[in-house]
Amino acid sequence: MSNLDAGPVTVIGLGLMGQALAGAFLRDGRPTTVWNRTAGKGEALVAQGARLAGSVGEAVAAAPLVVVCVSDHDAVHGLLEPLGDVLDGRVLVNLSSGTSQAARETAGQVAKRGGTYLAGAIMAVPATIGTADATIVYSGPRAAFDQHEPALRCLAGGTAYLGADHGLAALHEVAVLSLMWNILNGFLHGAALLGAAGVNASAFVPLAKEGVSTVGAWLEGYARQIDEGAYPALDSTIDTHLAAMEHVVAESETLGVDAELPRFVKALAERAVAGGRGGDGYAAMIEWFRTPASA
Amino acid sequence: MSNLDAGPVTVIGLGLMGQALAGAFLRDGRPTTVWNRTAGKGEALVAQGARLAGSVGEAVAAAPLVVVCVSDHDAVHGLLEPLGDVLDGRVLVNLSSGTSQAARETAGQVAKRGGTYLAGAIMAVPATIGTADATIVYSGPRAAFDQHEPALRCLAGGTAYLGADHGLAALHEVAVLSLMWNILNGFLHGAALLGAAGVNASAFVPLAKEGVSTVGAWLEGYARQIDEGAYPALDSTIDTHLAAMEHVVAESETLGVDAELPRFVKALAERAVAGGRGGDGYAAMIEWFRTPASA
Repeated sequence: MSNLDAGPVTVIGLGLMGQALAGAFLRDGRPTTVWNRTAGKGEALVAQGARLAGSVGEAVAAAPLVVVCVSDHDAVHGLLEPLGDVLDGRVLVNLSSGTSQAARETAGQVAKRGGTYLAGAIMAVPATIGTADATIVYSGPRAAFDQHEPALRCLAGGTAYLGADHGLAALHEVAVLSLMWNILNGFLHGAALLGAAGVNASAFVPLAKEGVSTVGAWLEGYARQIDEGAYPALDSTIDTHLAAMEHVVAESETLGVDAELPRFVKALAERAVAGGRGGDGYAAMIEWFRTPASA
Repeated sequence: MSNLDAGPVTVIGLGLMGQALAGAFLRDGRPTTVWNRTAGKGEALVAQGARLAGSVGEAVAAAPLVVVCVSDHDAVHGLLEPLGDVLDGRVLVNLSSGTSQAARETAGQVAKRGGTYLAGAIMAVPATIGTADATIVYSGPRAAFDQHEPALRCLAGGTAYLGADHGLAALHEVAVLSLMWNILNGFLHGAALLGAAGVNASAFVPLAKEGVSTVGAWLEGYARQIDEGAYPALDSTIDTHLAAMEHVVAESETLGVDAELPRFVKALAERAVAGGRGGDGYAAMIEWFRTPASA
C-alpha cells in the first residue's frame, strides 16, 4: 500500500504497542523510522519497510512527527536528555502512560528543547491499533493535533482531541481505567459468589454482559444529573440500593467468599445515606467521590 | 387484547413493580386477580380489567399461579401465615428480593402449606416489564417452571431457568447487582476525577461507554480462564495493571478527589502480586475473591 500524501513519521519504543503503532503507519504507506533502546525489536518492522535509526537523535531527525511509546515518563525523560536541539520545530506525541502532572512536566521539557508536545493516551490493546476498534485521545496545542491528525487517525478509528491542557489525555485514561478495573472486580466478585454455589463463570457471562450493557445505557442519564447537580431517583433510591447491598454482604459471608468488596460498596452508600441522600438516585453518590473521605 | 389459551394469574403486592407485572399479564389477555396489603394501589389495574381480591386468601385461591412481589421475605412470610391450605396444589412465584438462604426458607414454608415454590429475581426496571429488555430468572422445581413458562414469559423477553436450587435466582441477582454497583462506582470515580479538572460528566460518557463495552467483550475470555484455572495474560499482566493503579491513586490524591476506591482496587491487585500472580492476567484475581481476606 502506498500513500503519496503521507508524510514521514518516527516511532520510538518498540514494545508490543510501539510495534503495532509503527505497523499501522507502514500500512498507511508512510515512510516510517523506528528506534528502540535495546536492539532486536525492529526487525519485523524493517521487513515491512521501516527504516531502523542508529540513534534516538537520528530517529527524531527523520520526521516532523515523533511518536513515543515507552514504559513511563522517566523513560521519556531519558530519551530527551541527550537530544540537544534536534526536537526544534518537531511535534513529539507521547503515548506512554503516566499521570496528568507527569504529562505537564514532560511538555515543559520538550518545550525547553524547542519541540511541541502532544500528550496522548491509548485506550486499546495492540491488536486493535490501526482499526476502528482502537481509541487514542490527545491533549495539548490544538494546532499540533490538527497538523498531524491525518497521521494520528491511521493509528485509531477513535481519534479525539480533548483540549489544550496536556494533562487531559492522562486524566481521561485513568478515569477509564478506574472504570474498567471496577467492572472487572464486580464481575470477579459475582463469579466468585456463583462459583461457591457450583455455577461456573461462563454460565454467569450472559447475565453479566446484560448487566454491563444495561448500566452502560444508564450513564448518559447519570451524567446529566451530575452536571445538573440534582439526583431524583430514576429507578431505585440509595436507600433501596443499600438494602440490597446488605443481601450481597450476607451472601458473601455465608458462602465464604471475599466480603470486603461488597462491604466497601455498602460503606460508600451508607455515607450517602448518612449525608441525607438516601431518597435520591445513585448518581448523588458523586458528592462523596468528589471529596476525600476524611473531609 | 385477548388470549384464549391464557390461564388465570394472581399478583400480590402492587408497588411499581407489582403493577407492572399485573399490567403485562393483562396485556397478554390473562384473567388477572390482584391484591395489596394496603388499599388504593389496584385501581389503575382494575380499570384495565383486573379483579381486586378482598383478601390474600381469596387472591391465592383465584389462580394456579400466584406471583408475589413485596418488599422482602419477611413480608412474604407475613402473607403466608394466615393462608391455611389454600396454597395446596398452586405454584407461588416470589419475585421479592432477598438472599439465597431466605429463598430456601420461604420454599420450605410454602411446601409446608402444600404449595410449590419457584424463586425468581427481576433484573429490570418496572418500565421494561413485559418487553424484550426485561430479564427475570427463576430457580426451583423444573416442572413448575415448565408448566407456567408461557405465563412467566409474558413478563420478560429474557426469561431463564437456572436450576433446582431455590437459592440460585437470588444468588444470580446479587452477583449482577454487585457488578452493577461496581460499574457505577467506577464511573462516578472517573467523573469525579475529570470533574476536578473542569471536564463535565457528560463529556466523559462516550469514552466511559466505550470502556464498558470493551470490558463487556472481555468477559467470555475471563470466564473461560476462571473455569480452566489458568490465567495467561491476554493483554496486560497484573504487574502492569498495578503500575497504572498507582497513577490513578496519585491523580486522585493530587486532584483532591476520593482516593479510597482506587486504593482499594490497588490493594486487591497487590494481594495477587504478593501471592505470586503478578505475571498473570487480571482473571487470576478470582483466587482472592474466592477467599476471605483474613484467610
